[in-house]
Amino acid sequence: MRIEFFFDFGSPASYLAWTQLAKLEAAGEVALRPFLLGGVFKATGNNSPVTVPAKGKWMTEDLHRWADAYGVPLKFPRSFPLNTIAPMRGAAALEGDARFPTYVQAVYEAMFGRGEDISDPETLRAALKGAGLDAKAILGSMTEEPVKAKLKATTEEAIARGAFGAPTFFVADQMHFGNDRIDWVIRAAKPA
Amino acid sequence: MRIEFFFDFGSPASYLAWTQLAKLEAAGEVALRPFLLGGVFKATGNNSPVTVPAKGKWMTEDLHRWADAYGVPLKFPRSFPLNTIAPMRGAAALEGDARFPTYVQAVYEAMFGRGEDISDPETLRAALKGAGLDAKAILGSMTEEPVKAKLKATTEEAIARGAFGAPTFFVADQMHFGNDRIDWVIRAAKPA
Repeated sequence: MRIEFFFDFGSPASYLAWTQLAKLEAAGEVALRPFLLGGVFKATGNNSPVTVPAKGKWMTEDLHRWADAYGVPLKFPRSFPLNTIAPMRGAAALEGDARFPTYVQAVYEAMFGRGEDISDPETLRAALKGAGLDAKAILGSMTEEPVKAKLKATTEEAIARGAFGAPTFFVADQMHFGNDRIDWVIRAAKPA
Repeated sequence: MRIEFFFDFGSPASYLAWTQLAKLEAAGEVALRPFLLGGVFKATGNNSPVTVPAKGKWMTEDLHRWADAYGVPLKFPRSFPLNTIAPMRGAAALEGDARFPTYVQAVYEAMFGRGEDISDPETLRAALKGAGLDAKAILGSMTEEPVKAKLKATTEEAIARGAFGAPTFFVADQMHFGNDRIDWVIRAAKPA
């Protein structure tokens, strides 16, 4: 079955879930769908853990435990959270394109693998060039109106379907929230 | 190693975690510690999922998925959330007493096993009597000042140690939050 995986580059839990993409792809066809977490929070009420300092502290520890268990790096940019709208527009521009997986990998590895500030155009450009992508063309797409509209539409679709945070997964109409629900997503996509 | 398990009868995730007590007890000595979730929210900021309707909707579905996976009943009282201060004071009164596990079981099974309104003294009395407990003595303890003070002190201790919700687990200084972190608690108490 098809697995829809709504993500934002600014979400460390989405990054962790993305590092488990192969596991998800073994259970079903995964559609990575870029959406704006800020837009979701604006529509549904901001339930970001950072709004409750004690929860934010625990969540940081928890995310590092998951990264250690997965055996993947997790490094936060010095300034966090940061504005991810430009790289998210790049994701919307490339969604469905053959370069899309490479783009997502390049941005996530810069953001949470190395803790780089991808809101800085030069940092983003370097990350894309390092992955062999045409950085100039991709950065250019980020200001195109149809691309902006597409990202907004995907965000609105996710909100209408019940999303309130990231990552959000859908298997048909069943919604799962969080990196810590990957096993539920897999069970839903491929019942035992 | 010792596992501290802070719970409130009003928390369905605490109930679900409590149904897995045998699994936790296989990993370490479990100390069930009654605290007031309302007091925690008041101190740390209310991050109850019900404050964000879309999150509340998902969480209800998610809790039922966990109950089904555990093979345990999960029934919400008609009026929810409800005031659990009286039964929580009963728990504080019995903490460390031989009757404590029976008391916790009687209240949780009434609250989430059968969906009864345990804020009603007669309903609570019937649940305790049904479990063979001295309901009159226990209900009497709920108005005693030292009992009230003990529950408040445990709540303040949990807040000081970083709690922001329920259930909260501690293995020494390592804190875990949520029914969905039981496996992390077990790993912390009994490293492989």
